[in-house]
Amino acid sequence: MIIAAIEAGGTKFVCGLLKADCTDYSAPTILARTSIPTTTPAETLAAVAAFFAAESRERGGVDIAGVGCFGPVDLHPASPGWGRITSTPKPGWSGADVAGTLRDALGVPLAFDTDVNAAAYGEFLWGAARGLKNFIYLTVGTGIGGGVFSGGDLVHGLSHPELGHVKLARLPEDAYEGGCPYHKDCLEGLASGPAIEKRWGRPGMELPPGHPAWELEARYLARAVAAYALVLSPERVLLGGGVGMRPGLAERVSVLAGEELAGYLPPLTDPERLSGYVRRPALGADAGLIGAAALALRLCDE
Amino acid sequence: MIIAAIEAGGTKFVCGLLKADCTDYSAPTILARTSIPTTTPAETLAAVAAFFAAESRERGGVDIAGVGCFGPVDLHPASPGWGRITSTPKPGWSGADVAGTLRDALGVPLAFDTDVNAAAYGEFLWGAARGLKNFIYLTVGTGIGGGVFSGGDLVHGLSHPELGHVKLARLPEDAYEGGCPYHKDCLEGLASGPAIEKRWGRPGMELPPGHPAWELEARYLARAVAAYALVLSPERVLLGGGVGMRPGLAERVSVLAGEELAGYLPPLTDPERLSGYVRRPALGADAGLIGAAALALRLCDE
Repeated sequence: MIIAAIEAGGTKFVCGLLKADCTDYSAPTILARTSIPTTTPAETLAAVAAFFAAESRERGGVDIAGVGCFGPVDLHPASPGWGRITSTPKPGWSGADVAGTLRDALGVPLAFDTDVNAAAYGEFLWGAARGLKNFIYLTVGTGIGGGVFSGGDLVHGLSHPELGHVKLARLPEDAYEGGCPYHKDCLEGLASGPAIEKRWGRPGMELPPGHPAWELEARYLARAVAAYALVLSPERVLLGGGVGMRPGLAERVSVLAGEELAGYLPPLTDPERLSGYVRRPALGADAGLIGAAALALRLCDE
Repeated sequence: MIIAAIEAGGTKFVCGLLKADCTDYSAPTILARTSIPTTTPAETLAAVAAFFAAESRERGGVDIAGVGCFGPVDLHPASPGWGRITSTPKPGWSGADVAGTLRDALGVPLAFDTDVNAAAYGEFLWGAARGLKNFIYLTVGTGIGGGVFSGGDLVHGLSHPELGHVKLARLPEDAYEGGCPYHKDCLEGLASGPAIEKRWGRPGMELPPGHPAWELEARYLARAVAAYALVLSPERVLLGGGVGMRPGLAERVSVLAGEELAGYLPPLTDPERLSGYVRRPALGADAGLIGAAALALRLCDE
């Protein structure tokens, strides 16, 4: 099975031709890849199509495609807007028909979901959430977002989860007002990479271990994890992204989430169960591409 | 199909013999009912068994049973503690084997879940959530709890959702410290019936419409609904319970949840979609019993 996998991001579209098997579900092999800057929808999507046209000629065609896309996107199968970006501050992309354009260009069945749902599904098939029926994939970087897996499948409800925009109780020692343009001091406004930089005057990568920024960051993330645990009862939380993957952060967030819950959620009152509750994802730098390929394999069941 | 339905509450066990059909899923008829005080597990469960023994003799036997139980309970099918209350301040009930005792006494297959999941499932089959794949049933009364339905089924994860214990940002005008013994100012600590009484010095039922208590209550509930919407993307939120069913409250919570989201969650930015997002459940006073019967009908598929 040859898969066209696309990680459609706000700054670049990472495209890959991958080989995987519908039946044994072993991790896919990347045969070819490229990265295309996100400029206008017409230009970017045409470049994506051209890459796959050239690559698939060389390798005897593509069978299925998967796209993990930046959002917000319309995921309602019955909606006339399915596969489009809904509204985004990114010039030209509001209403862009990402899924339809790529499906027509590639001429194969195409699975479409959010970038974070793609990453979550990749971790479910081949990563740090193998075999779990309920988990969350949270990414903390320039923004904060998450994919939610519940009852053995990705959550698609009214729209898609927006885990980064939950408004939490503030930590009293934190004077930073928050930087989310919609909600000011929601989780993303308080704990994303840009929030860290604005609060401390330096980007997170320049703040050493032991700097108070990291304990504050861990406490906000723990507060969010506690809320997710109470609402969704996930068996595990994967913490990805440039900020989220910082060594030691997941471990500290686990401990502090236990403190936030204050003995309330029985399995997590056991320190052994709590340890490892929040952990890093396993798929590393290729998580986006591999996640998009994972989405495509969902078409095998149809 | 004759169903033994049990709404197992902290103050009373409501038991009913109901008639329903596995295939046409029409709303069940209540043939007989009784209410048994919750004293000790041995005494209460024996009285429940005696009621069904007498009633089923008269009506030719019981086919299946369903129990919606106060919590927290162990719902892991593979756990040796399945069907037991885990830990509760209620004397004698920590570790009580509610499901096992009743299944053995009744001698029929028995479905067991939380009281709020039972109510949610009843609303899904016959009430205000018919046909929805993703919704929340929130009950606000002596405590605050909720059942969660995601991807077409009840959520059972690490344990069960505990929607009432989410810690939210405080409203600055509210000086009440909160009354939850675990978390002090979580949602339940701030917005349950006892919290209203402690804050205002009078029980909610004595506070007239227009009293500032109700706007504060609506704002806390709206903050919670916004958080649930961001995490779970439910298509609807049902607001039940003695406090939650107060006339006009659901409508006000809908409007304020839109304000909390501040234009962020696209379908709810449309005032028409927002109106009716939070609404009252439909099953009324018998919701607990009917929900327990709904749980029992889940056994038809097994």
